[in-house]
Amino acid sequence: MKVAVFRKEHFNAAHRLHNPDWSEEKNTAVFGKCNNPSFHGHNYELIVKVIGEPDPETGYVCDMKILSDLIKEHVSDRFDHKNLNLDVPEFQSLNPTAENIAVVIYNILRDKVDAKLELKIRLYETERNFVEYPA
Amino acid sequence: MKVAVFRKEHFNAAHRLHNPDWSEEKNTAVFGKCNNPSFHGHNYELIVKVIGEPDPETGYVCDMKILSDLIKEHVSDRFDHKNLNLDVPEFQSLNPTAENIAVVIYNILRDKVDAKLELKIRLYETERNFVEYPA
Amino acid sequence: MKVAVFRKEHFNAAHRLHNPDWSEEKNTAVFGKCNNPSFHGHNYELIVKVIGEPDPETGYVCDMKILSDLIKEHVSDRFDHKNLNLDVPEFQSLNPTAENIAVVIYNILRDKVDAKLELKIRLYETERNFVEYPA
Amino acid sequence: MKVAVFRKEHFNAAHRLHNPDWSEEKNTAVFGKCNNPSFHGHNYELIVKVIGEPDPETGYVCDMKILSDLIKEHVSDRFDHKNLNLDVPEFQSLNPTAENIAVVIYNILRDKVDAKLELKIRLYETERNFVEYPA
Amino acid sequence: MKVAVFRKEHFNAAHRLHNPDWSEEKNTAVFGKCNNPSFHGHNYELIVKVIGEPDPETGYVCDMKILSDLIKEHVSDRFDHKNLNLDVPEFQSLNPTAENIAVVIYNILRDKVDAKLELKIRLYETERNFVEYPA
Amino acid sequence: MKVAVFRKEHFNAAHRLHNPDWSEEKNTAVFGKCNNPSFHGHNYELIVKVIGEPDPETGYVCDMKILSDLIKEHVSDRFDHKNLNLDVPEFQSLNPTAENIAVVIYNILRDKVDAKLELKIRLYETERNFVEYPA
Repeated sequence: MKVAVFRKEHFNAAHRLHNPDWSEEKNTAVFGKCNNPSFHGHNYELIVKVIGEPDPETGYVCDMKILSDLIKEHVSDRFDHKNLNLDVPEFQSLNPTAENIAVVIYNILRDKVDAKLELKIRLYETERNFVEYPA
Repeated sequence: MKVAVFRKEHFNAAHRLHNPDWSEEKNTAVFGKCNNPSFHGHNYELIVKVIGEPDPETGYVCDMKILSDLIKEHVSDRFDHKNLNLDVPEFQSLNPTAENIAVVIYNILRDKVDAKLELKIRLYETERNFVEYPA
Repeated sequence: MKVAVFRKEHFNAAHRLHNPDWSEEKNTAVFGKCNNPSFHGHNYELIVKVIGEPDPETGYVCDMKILSDLIKEHVSDRFDHKNLNLDVPEFQSLNPTAENIAVVIYNILRDKVDAKLELKIRLYETERNFVEYPA
Repeated sequence: MKVAVFRKEHFNAAHRLHNPDWSEEKNTAVFGKCNNPSFHGHNYELIVKVIGEPDPETGYVCDMKILSDLIKEHVSDRFDHKNLNLDVPEFQSLNPTAENIAVVIYNILRDKVDAKLELKIRLYETERNFVEYPA
Repeated sequence: MKVAVFRKEHFNAAHRLHNPDWSEEKNTAVFGKCNNPSFHGHNYELIVKVIGEPDPETGYVCDMKILSDLIKEHVSDRFDHKNLNLDVPEFQSLNPTAENIAVVIYNILRDKVDAKLELKIRLYETERNFVEYPA
Repeated sequence: MKVAVFRKEHFNAAHRLHNPDWSEEKNTAVFGKCNNPSFHGHNYELIVKVIGEPDPETGYVCDMKILSDLIKEHVSDRFDHKNLNLDVPEFQSLNPTAENIAVVIYNILRDKVDAKLELKIRLYETERNFVEYPA
């Protein structure tokens, strides 16, 4: 009798899409205006999904206050009002596409959330572009 | 060629999270402000998902008007403007967490919706906290 | 050159609409299911609007962090996860309709926000019912 | 390491639900006001989900600009500000229920999107009625 | 001490923008794809704003249930699942732009709502195009 | 018989709040994490309100397609995927607070929109922080 619970958080960050192994021309051709060297930014909306069996004593799959605090401590507070490329170590050599940000967040939280609970990340870069990992 | 159809309904209710087998201290420690003995409340948003093959004559998996009426009769009208703990028999001895409310709604509707159609419940307690059953 | 700034906060509360000077019949006739003696509840969304001239040194009409903290301290923390009728002194003898809640919030904040700034409250009881004060 | 990416587009169209093999009475009984012979309409919201492995050089499952242009060229531009029954060949003899529209969009895009990428369509007819294909 | 109350309703309708005094060329030039002779359609969201003094006995500016029923009877039920140009008398010789629809709705409701209450109409044709009357 | 029409557009940009006349300490104290020297960013939602009398021949206050193109050419295309501080001349010596961005957008559009039409700008920096000019 597994139930999924979802918690929505957010962070506002600057980023730039860029592959340092490519020429400027190729970067512009592939990433377009997302390659702007002075950066641009987004209000990222993050939804963390956790799947498990509700505890019969609490009726909780997990305590949403604890989940929210975990996300804030390990993700939002580290990404919010930051430049992902310059300020967040995980993206020093990883292109901060929505796909890669979702994978990074999954890996961060996978270590912190009880291993018996399944985990999935949905990340909205804009209202019209979003990603999910694992698919 | 299965298609999923979704219908969104809502109800506004009061509730309190509480485990009568625990001390007041433990209830406060675990449920925090959700344990307030005078209750608090939410605008619950309910999304019922039904999966099946569209009928070739109608192009419908199921008639959304009939599905909506079913949800209203058996869920919304019974839960709306109610105190879940005091007014809804299912929660007399079941803690009305979002997880448990979703399971209760699933069980209510499972009996009413054609057995050949799969069923899934998503319930928003707030815009930031929601659950899905079965996961 | 006046600019309006808006800050959105929320609180989840139980309430009941009731006029103690009326018979039970009249209360039921006028307030319908909102008169349920065991209470029901809502996710209230609160938007506080402040109008003034931006400070030329900061570019701010007012510091939104300070405004947000003010709303949390004096409104959200006092109303959130509460029963408005039982737990909030302002509604001991005032019917907690959306209209009255908005007026109460305005009066609370009017004392805390610099008098040279105009103030307006918008309160969503549900997505479909909301109020504004002053009109 | 598969990631899902989602792109949201929209189109505004008129339609009418009708089965030409049925009597007028049966059409009215089954489709109700959706059978209005002068048509009615909707703001359709379309979410296209594409699943695949991010390209290690770009960090993209697929280029969202290209995906968006594909949806616009083959779906939105053909359906937007159209009468689905009268103007769109796919619905000349297929009832334009949300279910059938989603299947048609899936079939259109399945030919255009790289076969190694999985595809799923979500279509909102209204905020309260929506469908997904494949389920 | 005036308070504004707002009630949101909706209707789904087909329409076409057209000026019968103009040539086909001019109609196409001015109204573009909105001039499609087979019609297109929208999910219209309607917000009715009513301003007045809360009744001291109820705490209501007006009973939202009564306001909602009024809007349903005189607007939503007459416009929903209709072709505005063909099925709604008010638009037989009036172009159903969002501006004109809002004015028509205002005039319908102005006769039904107590004259001592101010009235304003907001109408969303899409999430991105909307109008308000009176301005 | 004036009607207001509204058009919603968006742009995604990086920015930093900073007063060059102040010490680093004062900048940090006043602007907090918004002062991050590597910038952060937002999905800005822009709503342009235009008030006037509908043209009796079209039923339009103004052509929303033309208004949308105007906003795109003079605002969105210049601000989207840009760093407001580094890439947009208007903010070379003006702090890009939401208040100042709204005033800049108003001034840009005031020159382009017919002087007989009133103009108002609403700008969402996040879903919870937004501004309006003129107030």
